[in-house]
Amino acid sequence: MTQPTPTLPPAYLIAQDVQRSLTEDLGINGDITAALIKPDTQGIGRVITRERCIVSGQPWVDECFRQIDPQLDLQWHCKDGDSADADQELFRVQGNARAILTAERSALNFLQMLSGVATETGRYSSALLGTKTRVLDTRKTLPGLRVAQKYAVSCGGGINHRMGLYDAFLIKENHIAAAGSIACAVDQARQTGRGELIEVEVENFGQLKEAIDAGAQRIMLDNFSLKDTKKAVDLVRSQPTTQSIELEASGGIELDRLGEIAATGVDYVSVGALTKHVKAVDLSMRFV
Amino acid sequence: MTQPTPTLPPAYLIAQDVQRSLTEDLGINGDITAALIKPDTQGIGRVITRERCIVSGQPWVDECFRQIDPQLDLQWHCKDGDSADADQELFRVQGNARAILTAERSALNFLQMLSGVATETGRYSSALLGTKTRVLDTRKTLPGLRVAQKYAVSCGGGINHRMGLYDAFLIKENHIAAAGSIACAVDQARQTGRGELIEVEVENFGQLKEAIDAGAQRIMLDNFSLKDTKKAVDLVRSQPTTQSIELEASGGIELDRLGEIAATGVDYVSVGALTKHVKAVDLSMRFV
Amino acid sequence: MTQPTPTLPPAYLIAQDVQRSLTEDLGINGDITAALIKPDTQGIGRVITRERCIVSGQPWVDECFRQIDPQLDLQWHCKDGDSADADQELFRVQGNARAILTAERSALNFLQMLSGVATETGRYSSALLGTKTRVLDTRKTLPGLRVAQKYAVSCGGGINHRMGLYDAFLIKENHIAAAGSIACAVDQARQTGRGELIEVEVENFGQLKEAIDAGAQRIMLDNFSLKDTKKAVDLVRSQPTTQSIELEASGGIELDRLGEIAATGVDYVSVGALTKHVKAVDLSMRFV
Amino acid sequence: MTQPTPTLPPAYLIAQDVQRSLTEDLGINGDITAALIKPDTQGIGRVITRERCIVSGQPWVDECFRQIDPQLDLQWHCKDGDSADADQELFRVQGNARAILTAERSALNFLQMLSGVATETGRYSSALLGTKTRVLDTRKTLPGLRVAQKYAVSCGGGINHRMGLYDAFLIKENHIAAAGSIACAVDQARQTGRGELIEVEVENFGQLKEAIDAGAQRIMLDNFSLKDTKKAVDLVRSQPTTQSIELEASGGIELDRLGEIAATGVDYVSVGALTKHVKAVDLSMRFV
Amino acid sequence: MTQPTPTLPPAYLIAQDVQRSLTEDLGINGDITAALIKPDTQGIGRVITRERCIVSGQPWVDECFRQIDPQLDLQWHCKDGDSADADQELFRVQGNARAILTAERSALNFLQMLSGVATETGRYSSALLGTKTRVLDTRKTLPGLRVAQKYAVSCGGGINHRMGLYDAFLIKENHIAAAGSIACAVDQARQTGRGELIEVEVENFGQLKEAIDAGAQRIMLDNFSLKDTKKAVDLVRSQPTTQSIELEASGGIELDRLGEIAATGVDYVSVGALTKHVKAVDLSMRFV
Amino acid sequence: MTQPTPTLPPAYLIAQDVQRSLTEDLGINGDITAALIKPDTQGIGRVITRERCIVSGQPWVDECFRQIDPQLDLQWHCKDGDSADADQELFRVQGNARAILTAERSALNFLQMLSGVATETGRYSSALLGTKTRVLDTRKTLPGLRVAQKYAVSCGGGINHRMGLYDAFLIKENHIAAAGSIACAVDQARQTGRGELIEVEVENFGQLKEAIDAGAQRIMLDNFSLKDTKKAVDLVRSQPTTQSIELEASGGIELDRLGEIAATGVDYVSVGALTKHVKAVDLSMRFV
Repeated sequence: MTQPTPTLPPAYLIAQDVQRSLTEDLGINGDITAALIKPDTQGIGRVITRERCIVSGQPWVDECFRQIDPQLDLQWHCKDGDSADADQELFRVQGNARAILTAERSALNFLQMLSGVATETGRYSSALLGTKTRVLDTRKTLPGLRVAQKYAVSCGGGINHRMGLYDAFLIKENHIAAAGSIACAVDQARQTGRGELIEVEVENFGQLKEAIDAGAQRIMLDNFSLKDTKKAVDLVRSQPTTQSIELEASGGIELDRLGEIAATGVDYVSVGALTKHVKAVDLSMRFV
Repeated sequence: MTQPTPTLPPAYLIAQDVQRSLTEDLGINGDITAALIKPDTQGIGRVITRERCIVSGQPWVDECFRQIDPQLDLQWHCKDGDSADADQELFRVQGNARAILTAERSALNFLQMLSGVATETGRYSSALLGTKTRVLDTRKTLPGLRVAQKYAVSCGGGINHRMGLYDAFLIKENHIAAAGSIACAVDQARQTGRGELIEVEVENFGQLKEAIDAGAQRIMLDNFSLKDTKKAVDLVRSQPTTQSIELEASGGIELDRLGEIAATGVDYVSVGALTKHVKAVDLSMRFV
Repeated sequence: MTQPTPTLPPAYLIAQDVQRSLTEDLGINGDITAALIKPDTQGIGRVITRERCIVSGQPWVDECFRQIDPQLDLQWHCKDGDSADADQELFRVQGNARAILTAERSALNFLQMLSGVATETGRYSSALLGTKTRVLDTRKTLPGLRVAQKYAVSCGGGINHRMGLYDAFLIKENHIAAAGSIACAVDQARQTGRGELIEVEVENFGQLKEAIDAGAQRIMLDNFSLKDTKKAVDLVRSQPTTQSIELEASGGIELDRLGEIAATGVDYVSVGALTKHVKAVDLSMRFV
Repeated sequence: MTQPTPTLPPAYLIAQDVQRSLTEDLGINGDITAALIKPDTQGIGRVITRERCIVSGQPWVDECFRQIDPQLDLQWHCKDGDSADADQELFRVQGNARAILTAERSALNFLQMLSGVATETGRYSSALLGTKTRVLDTRKTLPGLRVAQKYAVSCGGGINHRMGLYDAFLIKENHIAAAGSIACAVDQARQTGRGELIEVEVENFGQLKEAIDAGAQRIMLDNFSLKDTKKAVDLVRSQPTTQSIELEASGGIELDRLGEIAATGVDYVSVGALTKHVKAVDLSMRFV
Repeated sequence: MTQPTPTLPPAYLIAQDVQRSLTEDLGINGDITAALIKPDTQGIGRVITRERCIVSGQPWVDECFRQIDPQLDLQWHCKDGDSADADQELFRVQGNARAILTAERSALNFLQMLSGVATETGRYSSALLGTKTRVLDTRKTLPGLRVAQKYAVSCGGGINHRMGLYDAFLIKENHIAAAGSIACAVDQARQTGRGELIEVEVENFGQLKEAIDAGAQRIMLDNFSLKDTKKAVDLVRSQPTTQSIELEASGGIELDRLGEIAATGVDYVSVGALTKHVKAVDLSMRFV
Repeated sequence: MTQPTPTLPPAYLIAQDVQRSLTEDLGINGDITAALIKPDTQGIGRVITRERCIVSGQPWVDECFRQIDPQLDLQWHCKDGDSADADQELFRVQGNARAILTAERSALNFLQMLSGVATETGRYSSALLGTKTRVLDTRKTLPGLRVAQKYAVSCGGGINHRMGLYDAFLIKENHIAAAGSIACAVDQARQTGRGELIEVEVENFGQLKEAIDAGAQRIMLDNFSLKDTKKAVDLVRSQPTTQSIELEASGGIELDRLGEIAATGVDYVSVGALTKHVKAVDLSMRFV
């Protein structure tokens, strides 16, 4: 399954991610083992995936090699969002041998992690193919790697939920209690906001109706049963003027139940596991 | 299994990790939903683990809450390295409600990831209990989170391999080829180094003997069979003067084979899976 | 006119704004004239406004004094969003004399600029009192001071438009041309977005209709005449299902025409002048 | 009126100013609307001034486009310090369409603000043409933009006063009181200084004489009447050895009184309004 | 010889100096040996000088301990600028033993270097006691430590020359050649400057006369013989209106010739050796 | 004496060192004197050493000129570790005259300091030629310049001791007391470490024996007499299995006693004077 190339984060964020990684690997002393190799030695590194995966992370890989040595030449055989088969060569890098070996681990750490996220997301989006339900990520991400992980989710065919606390309202129990009611909370959000999405998390049908009446743009059904999810979808569809309310099923979404859940007609399922668990893709570099 | 409290990284590294996480969550606009709550509202958050785990990450959690509001009061019921049971309360945080909710996700993201690493490491170190073999981590870590992950490995009873390219020699195929021989490479490392550990990766018995003769302090057996691992241990033990050479088994180390591997007498097994794969512990905060 | 206290940006942004200002004022050498005063001298500074204004900028003022000397004691007689009369004392600061004089100019530079923005915004929001039209700011801000200026706009009763290119779609001529049509552009925005507000800028009624049909959430009427603005409002109101579409009048909005514009029933007027022009409030510190 | 090209601040300061501006505009998510345009689309942006102005800010404009895309090609039709007529094209930028649109607002925000400062300064320096009096700026600047604004002042034919608290002495009432007398304060400044300009602010003729006797290099006449300013000039000129003392008139300097003030023979007038008030020049980019 | 306490650089510069030093000492891994000590162990460190010296560097020492552990208690028995005898205790630090040992080396590195600079400067200023000649430092400093070293020079009774290229004019051969003449260069400096000191370096009497006529405020006599220095002083004194011109002797200024040089009546001698050579004071910490 | 080119620190550390130096020299205002030269003037600077030295610091010199103007062309006539004679030209730099003059002082400050360290180290390593004893540096370095100074030590033929507290154990009196015994301390280091060198400082033969028995890899003889040093060497050599223990003589190592010390057979002498004292090499740039 080939995805459209997803939108990249600003270049300076990628540069910062990479600098952090190289700094923790090189410290103050640098790569003391690479210093055993003569400074001018040339080499070629070929990076192979040992398992089927969806590729994600090329801009980070490029930046790792570029920060160590801008002269290195990289040739990619695929692009982010592409599927790759086991034993396929993903890219090769040619140039100064010390530089290739020094940057290798940081580059692979990004690529194996992000491709892991994309591949897992791909399992969810594949399972939803042919339905109108789509898979959303969450804010349960690896600290400091959210932008990169959310990019990987989109490489895998997933949809990004809000990036952080700053770019959408997600009104939960405590906010409702503080504001007095769902209606008050939504109203206050509309007044203090700059047009951000207003989403309300509901736990039962009473709250669902309140959220509909309050004009929430998206409603998160927190741990609703399959049957209740279906009922919620029907309720929203039956509203005269609220055809644009989106419903998001959340809590205990598992891969093998996606078919059933999609059958309810819910717009989104949100899955923390996409980004809080990581299974790195098995990659290796062969150096010649 | 309670571990001795492991050595903490310098405080400024923890502060940087946390600042990065808060910045990506709060952006420029801040927590727009928390702003629905009255500024002076007080609250208590109780963090519970939903599954059995080894706890790791307290200094990061403390720092998350501290950076948002230094007045918040945290009370821990356990310390890093302790085991916790499912449904156990790990800590509670009391004070300004907005501040608690704003810091919550960053704090939990650190705690669930690091406790996940510690818990997985604990599985390996438990399986090795009663043997002299110990489990080592690798440089296959989440970019930017290596220091934190290596701390979590030590919370789980694992041993840290080198932190990065800068604090130990790990002489591999390419370095050997470049230096001409294992003997030359080790010799050169000894001359250019500052007393760092010199480890050599070997792929067969010829290389193993060379590494022993060259005076390597640690030797990594790359994908040796069980039988060959045992033979390597015997060979090293039979050396008149090299009783201090350590052997590290690497490649395809799986949890259910640890008993057999330890039985060979090898000093270390190194396991990339400890840090490149992450299964976050299932935590939640209940807010009152 | 007293406004509700507006939401503050994250504390680290305020700290950065202040550090930048102090660094450009103190350089490497520090305040060489303050060094003429004995280190232990105490003093009191009273800050007075010489003209009627709406106050804005307290957190920046507090931080200026705090970064120079955390021991200084500040007492405010008003809060952000309050109106102050000419010759009114806004706050007094007490403590080390050197520290007060060193921080004075940076503190006043923030306060006079931000109160200037709030005061000018207040003129627009006052002129709109009793109507349903509200005044919006734009991205035409002083470089590096956008967060602070947008905060000042809200102190003056204005509404913030998007903070930057990252938190809402504003689809203009070039995006429409690139996407093929307004419908395509809006659709693409919906697909690639995370629920951000989708606004379309239109130049005529043909485009307006397209934008309505495409489901834009907000539509910017670019340089529409009064008459056409009224016609646009009527058109949107006549739509069966689009009661939630907001209209924003943009281009040549002047203070003395606000009554007429509001009479059209348009939801917003957006005014670059709020933040691209600045008339600093005339403040001074009297030191005793 | 064409000015000589003024001295530029160090390149890293310009790069920091620009990075700050781009960061607040792009955040973590980047330009989400530009993403609607195909990645390879090319375009040309032509920037036109809608009003007569003195141009200032080219290095900041260049850097904005360069940081977003180093491949963009800029062609300027004027240089900083030049006058431009209404409807004149100032520069054009050619290359990747997304990049041009993403950088546009930051670039224009710098150019409109700095040209505004230069243009206003130009009004003062024009009014002083043919006299020996020159216009000085002050430390009443927009926080974080002082270096840029002082550069714009020099583009407009003004003279920079000290950059900050660190590069000249300006001895005021409080410093005099603390030191005991003007003589003591000046003497102390001479002893602790590194040759920096020593200026004293005086409020009456008694202080003026003390400052002359103390050997001040420049004396600020604080709110002196026209008549007293003239008298002060005469007093200084009559001193046998102090022909090098400069006099600076300060306080309530208005554009239409400059002729009278210059006629007193005073060396400088200092004007906070040059930099604390800003009227942005009306610019726009036409994109093809 | 006790000096008046010299003016301190801004606190954030000291904090940055210290952070840099601690970072290079602690790296990512921290103080691995201190970790052998139980976390709660308390101790007292007493810092003794083994040789007579002028003390300098207390703010850096304080900051080293503070950054590692804000709870540590320091008691100084002297202040910067004081002379200390061999075997005198300078300060003691009490509190957490790990923290004291971790900060010790950074603290002593600052104190021994800066006291070394102050002590050497003290030799020059002592030799000039009773004369009107004073010793100046130069820009020949240890990279990154200029502010600290210039502070140490003032602790030793020396006078600071300009801090850098930015805060005074020093017109040398190449600038003169570029401007056409000394007169042109000085004139241009006066026009482009903000009142900074204008100094000219001259190599012969022809240039000296030009510099006097041009109105230079300070003139550097480059490698003038004793006799010529005297002649230059006489020439300057004989000018009717230039009693305020200062003369600076530069080049080959040695300690044992200071008496002779001062006898010429020159205002300053400038000595690169004060800051480019460093002889650290011999300090040690005794820990109990 | 030509040394092999020593291993360079990571490029970003060199870039940071240089940026710090340029920032303190240029401040916010830049090189105000260089601005007297026409912007397009070209020139050539030739850097000559006035005394015999070992050259060190080329990467820092290159970076100084590169950060000011990437177009400048540098041609070196020697490489780091080479000896240069008095009056020898080390390199020439060609290009924009302003840029060369602006970068000159920072470049020379690095080169004169680092070549000073290399030259002094060269005196020690020359005195040890033909023996098996080698000279080690210490952590007594100039704050913020440790990496650069340790590089210079290796240019001069010295060996680097640990870089900081983080990359080797050095167990001293306090650690031993805290751990209970040398054996306990070494054992604990082995358990908590990652294979770092374990060194023990001993003050007498009792401790020396304990350290040998504990398995220390290196032992520092603190202020041992010549005779005792010899005795210690003999003791270590007589151990059946500890042929790999290294001995380091420390305390009062003076240049003219190196022959005697080396004759004891000790492996290392460590010398704080290499890096805590600095005698800058006398360099100058001739500009044409």
